[in-house]
Amino acid sequence: MRNTIIVTGHGTFASGVVSAMQMIMGPQENVVAVDFTSADTAAELRERFREIYERVQAGPLLVLADLRGGSPSNMALEVSRQSRNVQIIYGANLPLLIDLVVNAERENPFHSGTIDEAREAVGLLVPSDLDPSEESEDAAWM
Amino acid sequence: MRNTIIVTGHGTFASGVVSAMQMIMGPQENVVAVDFTSADTAAELRERFREIYERVQAGPLLVLADLRGGSPSNMALEVSRQSRNVQIIYGANLPLLIDLVVNAERENPFHSGTIDEAREAVGLLVPSDLDPSEESEDAAWM
Repeated sequence: MRNTIIVTGHGTFASGVVSAMQMIMGPQENVVAVDFTSADTAAELRERFREIYERVQAGPLLVLADLRGGSPSNMALEVSRQSRNVQIIYGANLPLLIDLVVNAERENPFHSGTIDEAREAVGLLVPSDLDPSEESEDAAWM
Repeated sequence: MRNTIIVTGHGTFASGVVSAMQMIMGPQENVVAVDFTSADTAAELRERFREIYERVQAGPLLVLADLRGGSPSNMALEVSRQSRNVQIIYGANLPLLIDLVVNAERENPFHSGTIDEAREAVGLLVPSDLDPSEESEDAAWM
């Protein structure tokens, strides 16, 4: 049983991050985007989480939220109390989602190093400081 | 002079992250999204960076990229060599963008703690482990 990953956030954060992951890795059935735009009510957001939590009855359920606090992560938390347990990772970035998709076949794709890997994937490039030999690693793919 | 922040990534990552920031903070003139979808060519992406780099002649220029490597961060780097220096932060998340927008009036909004703050903004919530008193901090806003 593959786990399910829900990406959620304000505006179109969720569908944006999922579209980036899909452009790199191709379509992934087990990844769902839950957007919360200014056109949505809290009740609609709650219903979307409920529907997904009910549909995904087996396997680990992970939620990646744009940040801690705010309706998306709060509602993911609230609905999980009423139905089933989930793990919620906030401050999500694209390397985190890719890491979880790569490990999606594992029993629990969320491993002890997941948060550290997402943190280490944040970094600074100052072009004028870069050694030309470092550039090749950035030039390899799409 | 306010600095300019370019968010860039695969698919609609950039416009998605910017829409989330705007839903929380309102419109920000100095933040630009540069998407790279499967409908775009590398030449189009290059031209978009060139046009923005030329338009923004003064003030710090920061690029937030979805990840290190891949066309968006590589092209931001390549074009900066031909025109002007920029700083590129990869592995971007929403708390990082919000931090930079909040500090946009500073001479250099990118301060020594920026990367650390973006890293610390990644974390795990396990609903069943949460003390009810901890919840209040997540319930405060939108």
